[in-house]
Amino acid sequence: MKQLIVTTLLTVAAAMTVSAQSRIETITLHSEILNADKDCTVYLPDGYDHTQESYPVLYLLHGASDTHTAWVEKGNMRQIADEAFASGAARKMIVIMPDASGEGPNHTGLHMGYFNVPDWEYERFFFEEFMPDMERRYRIIGDKQHRAISGLSMGGGGTAAYAFHHPELFSSACPMSGLLDVPPGPRNYTDALQKSLADNSPVATLRNMTEEQLNAVRSIRWWVDCGDDDFLWRSNVEFYTLMRERNIPLQYRMRDGGHTWRYWQTVLPDVLTFVSNGFDK
Amino acid sequence: MKQLIVTTLLTVAAAMTVSAQSRIETITLHSEILNADKDCTVYLPDGYDHTQESYPVLYLLHGASDTHTAWVEKGNMRQIADEAFASGAARKMIVIMPDASGEGPNHTGLHMGYFNVPDWEYERFFFEEFMPDMERRYRIIGDKQHRAISGLSMGGGGTAAYAFHHPELFSSACPMSGLLDVPPGPRNYTDALQKSLADNSPVATLRNMTEEQLNAVRSIRWWVDCGDDDFLWRSNVEFYTLMRERNIPLQYRMRDGGHTWRYWQTVLPDVLTFVSNGFDK
Amino acid sequence: MKQLIVTTLLTVAAAMTVSAQSRIETITLHSEILNADKDCTVYLPDGYDHTQESYPVLYLLHGASDTHTAWVEKGNMRQIADEAFASGAARKMIVIMPDASGEGPNHTGLHMGYFNVPDWEYERFFFEEFMPDMERRYRIIGDKQHRAISGLSMGGGGTAAYAFHHPELFSSACPMSGLLDVPPGPRNYTDALQKSLADNSPVATLRNMTEEQLNAVRSIRWWVDCGDDDFLWRSNVEFYTLMRERNIPLQYRMRDGGHTWRYWQTVLPDVLTFVSNGFDK
Amino acid sequence: MKQLIVTTLLTVAAAMTVSAQSRIETITLHSEILNADKDCTVYLPDGYDHTQESYPVLYLLHGASDTHTAWVEKGNMRQIADEAFASGAARKMIVIMPDASGEGPNHTGLHMGYFNVPDWEYERFFFEEFMPDMERRYRIIGDKQHRAISGLSMGGGGTAAYAFHHPELFSSACPMSGLLDVPPGPRNYTDALQKSLADNSPVATLRNMTEEQLNAVRSIRWWVDCGDDDFLWRSNVEFYTLMRERNIPLQYRMRDGGHTWRYWQTVLPDVLTFVSNGFDK
Repeated sequence: MKQLIVTTLLTVAAAMTVSAQSRIETITLHSEILNADKDCTVYLPDGYDHTQESYPVLYLLHGASDTHTAWVEKGNMRQIADEAFASGAARKMIVIMPDASGEGPNHTGLHMGYFNVPDWEYERFFFEEFMPDMERRYRIIGDKQHRAISGLSMGGGGTAAYAFHHPELFSSACPMSGLLDVPPGPRNYTDALQKSLADNSPVATLRNMTEEQLNAVRSIRWWVDCGDDDFLWRSNVEFYTLMRERNIPLQYRMRDGGHTWRYWQTVLPDVLTFVSNGFDK
Repeated sequence: MKQLIVTTLLTVAAAMTVSAQSRIETITLHSEILNADKDCTVYLPDGYDHTQESYPVLYLLHGASDTHTAWVEKGNMRQIADEAFASGAARKMIVIMPDASGEGPNHTGLHMGYFNVPDWEYERFFFEEFMPDMERRYRIIGDKQHRAISGLSMGGGGTAAYAFHHPELFSSACPMSGLLDVPPGPRNYTDALQKSLADNSPVATLRNMTEEQLNAVRSIRWWVDCGDDDFLWRSNVEFYTLMRERNIPLQYRMRDGGHTWRYWQTVLPDVLTFVSNGFDK
Repeated sequence: MKQLIVTTLLTVAAAMTVSAQSRIETITLHSEILNADKDCTVYLPDGYDHTQESYPVLYLLHGASDTHTAWVEKGNMRQIADEAFASGAARKMIVIMPDASGEGPNHTGLHMGYFNVPDWEYERFFFEEFMPDMERRYRIIGDKQHRAISGLSMGGGGTAAYAFHHPELFSSACPMSGLLDVPPGPRNYTDALQKSLADNSPVATLRNMTEEQLNAVRSIRWWVDCGDDDFLWRSNVEFYTLMRERNIPLQYRMRDGGHTWRYWQTVLPDVLTFVSNGFDK
Repeated sequence: MKQLIVTTLLTVAAAMTVSAQSRIETITLHSEILNADKDCTVYLPDGYDHTQESYPVLYLLHGASDTHTAWVEKGNMRQIADEAFASGAARKMIVIMPDASGEGPNHTGLHMGYFNVPDWEYERFFFEEFMPDMERRYRIIGDKQHRAISGLSMGGGGTAAYAFHHPELFSSACPMSGLLDVPPGPRNYTDALQKSLADNSPVATLRNMTEEQLNAVRSIRWWVDCGDDDFLWRSNVEFYTLMRERNIPLQYRMRDGGHTWRYWQTVLPDVLTFVSNGFDK
């Protein structure tokens, strides 16, 4: 009897919180390019199962040493997206969280990272197999105007590099606390990952772009966000500097904080709003 | 010479701030219903003059003792809208600020207020003459899904009442610090304005709605906002209570502050984001 | 080798995040009044171990079905406090998280809740044993001006009730999503917990206060916070209404959200700032 | 009669907004050093006239082409401070707004700017005459721990330079959108103002500091804030970079916006909170 009221309270509370019928799916697809199975986490918004509507899509990339599950398990992305869509802060979209980890039974892979290395052409897999497969599998509108990309840390570097390599595919790109250049210190170019990071460095790429390339980059809406205590502060500040010098419009935010999930949980709602308003144009 | 550097600084600064080419227009239209000329202020977003695009529309109502110019002159609405559209926080829209003041040479009228009183049927003017005229005059999409209404104080009351009277016309309704019921105290029903406020009280209307009417109201997205120090707090809290009791989804915010332009300047960006995401559906 | 760069990144990141040398302690104390051992979690701010300084104190109460560990384990309170103190948003303080759960091996107890029930006089324990013990054990300034109380849900009800019972002890009281009245529905007064909640209902207490009692309550700074989707919305709105009617100054916030840790993690930084500025007077 | 209800509304509203009895004073003092009279605006918080309490102090500097009245007239500082103190976001303090304009009948002066130029030793005036006079004239605590400095644009440059020159005097320094280095382009060192800006450039000064000087600078709490669209972005980013390279703890914020009063009105509440928590230590 003592617990009756508590049970009542908790039941009512639970009833409130399940009201948004979003859904998280984990799927596995086989890659010919990688010769491996890769996992992927997908967020389907409230209403997806009850309509025939097609949706915009956000690709949301994890950081080094994490996997496709990180945004849901550590980043609380489902609740954040549910709230953003329910409160009218953002437009409903499908969020696809690929896996770029390199180890372990559930996400087998030779290498970590978003770029091509010998025997593991991840970037080619992403654009030639993964993205087309996802956009067939789900009701995704599937044009530049309704496709955005974001990610944190190593995934922030992937975000900027993918947008630079394929400006025709993304309306918005939003690196959070991005690894936007190779970290300072001695570089070891026999290490495949480190070499791939150097070869795809957004800062270095931006520095050497032709005017034609810059024009293509200007067709993307940019939101760059990095905490004032982040250990990756320097490459973010350099990226901002280069973007301003090249007259590429961007949103840049520096808030309080470091390289933490608390920071990214603060950034994600703004990114959802930002990419939403790009989908509208 | 001493001023050279200052001039340089100010010139550069000015160059930065005029980059958004939005435009404010004041127009006058003659009303047969009112037998009077009425003024109106219109915000046209950056790009309006250089494309053939049609836009969503927000009707933005002023408060008691103000006029159609208040949102621009006291509320800084142009800069707020410019920033919201430029930063990707909201979707570009046309903002129409009608006049419901009752006196003065520039906005001649017999009565203040958004409702019908004897010899001055303002609400009829609004829906039969003003809104249709505006939506012909400007490139406005002109359906419920791309039309929203907001306003402060007396205009917040107008916002809720207009949405209640015409749920088929507005996708979002956002009363700020709204006069959502007649203030407590002795009521003087020989006074036309006070009688019209009582007759159109959103709180009283909501209390007496049929289930069919409630369903229509549920087709509107609601954002209600009122400061914790506002002298109109009571009718806002009653409105929130009734909306929850009737299971009408709404966003409600209570922030720090009173009945001040500083408060409304804080609310407006959120309202622009909120109505934008309603336009998208 | 492939992992070298990752290891480097993670090491640098870890070095950044441990820079605030705050400390969490769990202690157990024996209560004569309860005839039981009770656990408690304590947050000691960066610098505590290296100075002889005394600190203000915040008592931070958990909700129903949780324990003294909830604020740290689910509420991320340590990181939030670290950041608030490091960024200058709040003043360093000691945060004491008592246990009012009723079951389990680590926090043995007959009853859940912050109030007295037959054979389990928790409130008497709190004020006669627990608080004095804590303020001897740690370097706590220990006067009203440097003592605050906050808590969520059932602990929000405890916060308001304790402040009402002992206005001479707290400079600030901050109920979050508080159970500020017994929930509507049939009441079972043979249930000890439910009877204690009804007997100590902040809403009912406030309704019946003498002017002398109201004056004492006015000596406390109030911050009341409850999400617009919270299932406890009604008693919070009633509390706000009564406080305004009785002319008791308060801060009230209604943000987006429900009865969730995400909400409370958003509120806690503001509460730390708010109580800090009360400590200063 | 028609106006009765409006009058009632406005009267109640007015009654609400005057509840904080802060006060703005304009005073004139004669400077021997400058051989001129200088004006100054002073904000005295609610309660100043009714107690014998002493207060912390914030020196708040205006920008180029403005005067001592700008923060009140354009920056809405009085309402912002009233709200921050009333809501518990900051601790009550006296705010002193000196004049560093150079022209006009009300603030006679030969030169604009916060630094010494031939025949117009403004910085010497500030520290030898102005600050001591103010701290005698008002009940100001008057030690480093309870003294802060902030300012915008040219006044942001003054803020950083004054803190560098006198780290023993300020607990917190908060440049907003600061002119933290001379702008790029041809420099004219025959112009006294431009030469003084170059000589006192915070970026250049920081670059050349000894370890002893850096240690002194570390005794100041720093909050640096500059919009992502500000035309002074470069020197702010350079300042942040140097501060991080020299291991000087700082808060840095980059929000949306340019060199506008709307931006500074957003920053000021955070600065008041930040300096408050420095006063507490």
